Amino acid sequence: METNLLFKKTCDHYRECGVLQSIGAILEWDEQTMAPAKASAYRAEQVACIARTLHRLRTLDKVGDWVQTLVDSDLASDPRSQSGSTIRNFARDFTRQKKLPESLVEAISKQAVIGQQAWVQARKESDFSSFAPHLERILRLKREEADAVGFLDERYDALLDDYEPGATTADVEKVLGGLKQQLVPLVRQILDSKKKPDRSIVCRPLSVSCQRRLGISAAELLGFDFQRGRLDTSTHPFSTELGPDDCRITTRYDEDFYLWSFFGTLHEVGHGMYEQGLKPDQYGLPLGKYASLGIHESQSRLWENLVGRSRSFWEFFYPKFQEHHPDLGNVSLDAFYFAVNDVQASPIRVEADEVTYNLHIIIRFELERQLLDERLAVSDLPQAWNEMYDELLGIRPVDDAKGVLQDVHWSAGLIGYFPTYTLGNLYAAQLFAAAEKDTGNLADMFRVGEFAPLLGWMRENVHQQGRRLGSVELVEDVTGEAPDARYLMDHLRRKLLPLYT
Amino acid sequence: METNLLFKKTCDHYRECGVLQSIGAILEWDEQTMAPAKASAYRAEQVACIARTLHRLRTLDKVGDWVQTLVDSDLASDPRSQSGSTIRNFARDFTRQKKLPESLVEAISKQAVIGQQAWVQARKESDFSSFAPHLERILRLKREEADAVGFLDERYDALLDDYEPGATTADVEKVLGGLKQQLVPLVRQILDSKKKPDRSIVCRPLSVSCQRRLGISAAELLGFDFQRGRLDTSTHPFSTELGPDDCRITTRYDEDFYLWSFFGTLHEVGHGMYEQGLKPDQYGLPLGKYASLGIHESQSRLWENLVGRSRSFWEFFYPKFQEHHPDLGNVSLDAFYFAVNDVQASPIRVEADEVTYNLHIIIRFELERQLLDERLAVSDLPQAWNEMYDELLGIRPVDDAKGVLQDVHWSAGLIGYFPTYTLGNLYAAQLFAAAEKDTGNLADMFRVGEFAPLLGWMRENVHQQGRRLGSVELVEDVTGEAPDARYLMDHLRRKLLPLYT
Repeated sequence: METNLLFKKTCDHYRECGVLQSIGAILEWDEQTMAPAKASAYRAEQVACIARTLHRLRTLDKVGDWVQTLVDSDLASDPRSQSGSTIRNFARDFTRQKKLPESLVEAISKQAVIGQQAWVQARKESDFSSFAPHLERILRLKREEADAVGFLDERYDALLDDYEPGATTADVEKVLGGLKQQLVPLVRQILDSKKKPDRSIVCRPLSVSCQRRLGISAAELLGFDFQRGRLDTSTHPFSTELGPDDCRITTRYDEDFYLWSFFGTLHEVGHGMYEQGLKPDQYGLPLGKYASLGIHESQSRLWENLVGRSRSFWEFFYPKFQEHHPDLGNVSLDAFYFAVNDVQASPIRVEADEVTYNLHIIIRFELERQLLDERLAVSDLPQAWNEMYDELLGIRPVDDAKGVLQDVHWSAGLIGYFPTYTLGNLYAAQLFAAAEKDTGNLADMFRVGEFAPLLGWMRENVHQQGRRLGSVELVEDVTGEAPDARYLMDHLRRKLLPLYT
Repeated sequence: METNLLFKKTCDHYRECGVLQSIGAILEWDEQTMAPAKASAYRAEQVACIARTLHRLRTLDKVGDWVQTLVDSDLASDPRSQSGSTIRNFARDFTRQKKLPESLVEAISKQAVIGQQAWVQARKESDFSSFAPHLERILRLKREEADAVGFLDERYDALLDDYEPGATTADVEKVLGGLKQQLVPLVRQILDSKKKPDRSIVCRPLSVSCQRRLGISAAELLGFDFQRGRLDTSTHPFSTELGPDDCRITTRYDEDFYLWSFFGTLHEVGHGMYEQGLKPDQYGLPLGKYASLGIHESQSRLWENLVGRSRSFWEFFYPKFQEHHPDLGNVSLDAFYFAVNDVQASPIRVEADEVTYNLHIIIRFELERQLLDERLAVSDLPQAWNEMYDELLGIRPVDDAKGVLQDVHWSAGLIGYFPTYTLGNLYAAQLFAAAEKDTGNLADMFRVGEFAPLLGWMRENVHQQGRRLGSVELVEDVTGEAPDARYLMDHLRRKLLPLYT
């Protein structure tokens, strides 16, 4: 067959895989937002059925042959071209999937549903022991996965690579280690400062419906398209795409802390706008897929923090915020802005400020590596968790619900995912600086409610690229420089030191 | 292979089909209740993917061989036994599915999603012309389906048989014709009566959230299990099962006519409780499936009308109703009960009273038969519709939204479905009478809020039977008599004549 025709045929095949993948996403979204209490046992069967069917499609021998022929063809000669990068990604997907037995894929997908349900319950009751057997099971399965895929140094490599293609544990360790050295003294300096925001401002109760309206209004302002998406409620906030024109984000509400739902929403809006910015005509294909989870998190963290916690954003949005929350009528913008950027050692990752956030990640990265390598037993995890919080943040969670049970990830089999948040923070600061170089002073735009220039720049330089490049390559290509933590540290110091000194 | 083993293997195969079928139901439920506006084009791809995959599974040659072997085995010798009826249903399913080309199955499933979207829009704008091309397409596809399946007298037989196994168009025509002869004079007598309820009672505005709370409270009272189900909102109310422990029902709200959402909810609760009463360990198999749509409608119409519009139900529930709707504080039970049973010639089927309801069905049955046989052109349908309403009910809809565009069915490819509503009314009255014979005076129970005995009787005699028997056989078996319209007519006369004379 002529190579171009074969390429088209292979693309059609992967588009069909994309349809199945999106069906799986519908099942999981529904499970976490809508499904009645007793539906989850059968939902695990449904998810497993799709996972199995998809895995069969992705590992058909004939597809392996097609991909090999394409790899050897002229179409693959330039790895940065549309066809070259598409074929490279096909080959990567096929190779990884072919190594995984169908029974393992099915077991992991089933355990993810059952594990998340168990986690929701365990978290509600702060009962780690009821969740422990699920974590054991998921770790066993993920070890099997790592062993099947193969790795150079340690099992963690094999899992990390699925979220952050090309990254190794050693790379991540170096980045996180370097960052820790700079963050710890900065956190110390801030926590020792006598200047503190008035925290009572952000604890004035606000009804769920008001919080929801505020979240939707900010999401629309930033550019989230509700004709192609929804906002719902779930135990752990997330973003997912159920099709090229169907992006669903969630948040969670606490009437006493309205900022959590607000920034949680902005975070997911960042993810959602990335998905909404992918090329719809490439849906199911590598060029229509997010580059890596690190890049994905760069978008969520950028809109949550570099935009949402900036003074200029609040110069525009604070009056609207006050309309929904009349208790803030007599609170000045300065006081509010300081409270929004309150740095404190707190036990919950998703509610953490921009500085300490990365320490939460470092703790999780260390612990999940040890769990995977059996250097740490599940039964010893809560204690290890609490000790690391004591060591790095000087606090101990009051219970496991606010400690080791706070995140959904491990219950869902997402081991190796956490470091991508900090990579995202790094990338976000560097991409933001590059966008500013190209488009002019962003703060001036935010101040008058203009967010389209920043979104437009991200669309063109990041979203529309899909997986054409790896994440490191992409950052280098777009910013003219290899990923560098300096941008993040500069941003944090420039923003926080004036508030705290 | 030993026959018992083969039977088990074949059952496992159909259980897997059941998983896929339930996934299709999730996609459709989400499309009609949750999906954002622009998601529907791709949703059609997703639905078609599941339909195609399911059809392939259901028509595998090896499955045909297994089923044939089972048909010829001892396990099939008693057609009323568990194994015998299961095998009979397998054979029926395989034969029908095998006759349908995959491309047709896929095209119908896609057109159903796209057609429903078009219908929602057309109904909103009361614009039949924008919907007409979709109806043309669906009719063309359904004719193809009928021709592929084959039929004795007319195409309609082939479609009807899918909803009401074993029923023929001639049977239905006879039943509906006989009923019409009795209904028309009864409707005349009632409409000519000078006694009328005070209709203003049921037009006192009630907020959607109050209506929703009332619906949920009635649903719980009757026995709908919200641990295994949900109630949501959609353009056209429906009930669907997304798994053995996941039944979703919907209703629609009009702030000015609270009874519509209320009785709509009771109707779907009846469907939902049937699904919730099926044997979970038989899920995906014939004995875990509803007997026919006529039997399904018998359950919805029974809880909506024989329970929900009975005086004894309101003796118990009216005080609770008044709590939610303080405007009814000074309205007597008698006045309210009469208003709830207001008989009038109205244009909307789902809002019709128990008597005129069947005339709405007769109109649809006639028209869809003519459309399918090309005796009526789509472009002439609105006029034909309005003329039949004039003839049978003496009214003309004010526009197509309240006329020919009111029902979802045709847009979703459900042609041949409507007669099952009237069959359901017949079965409901006859089953209700049989339940009363077994359990004692039902009105006395309703009066004190006891609905479990009736539900328990239905569970045992109808729900737990699944497809062991055909619908006519089932009614005969349970009531000791062939289906007979006399029960319905007796019920209507006994209830309505005292109100109107």
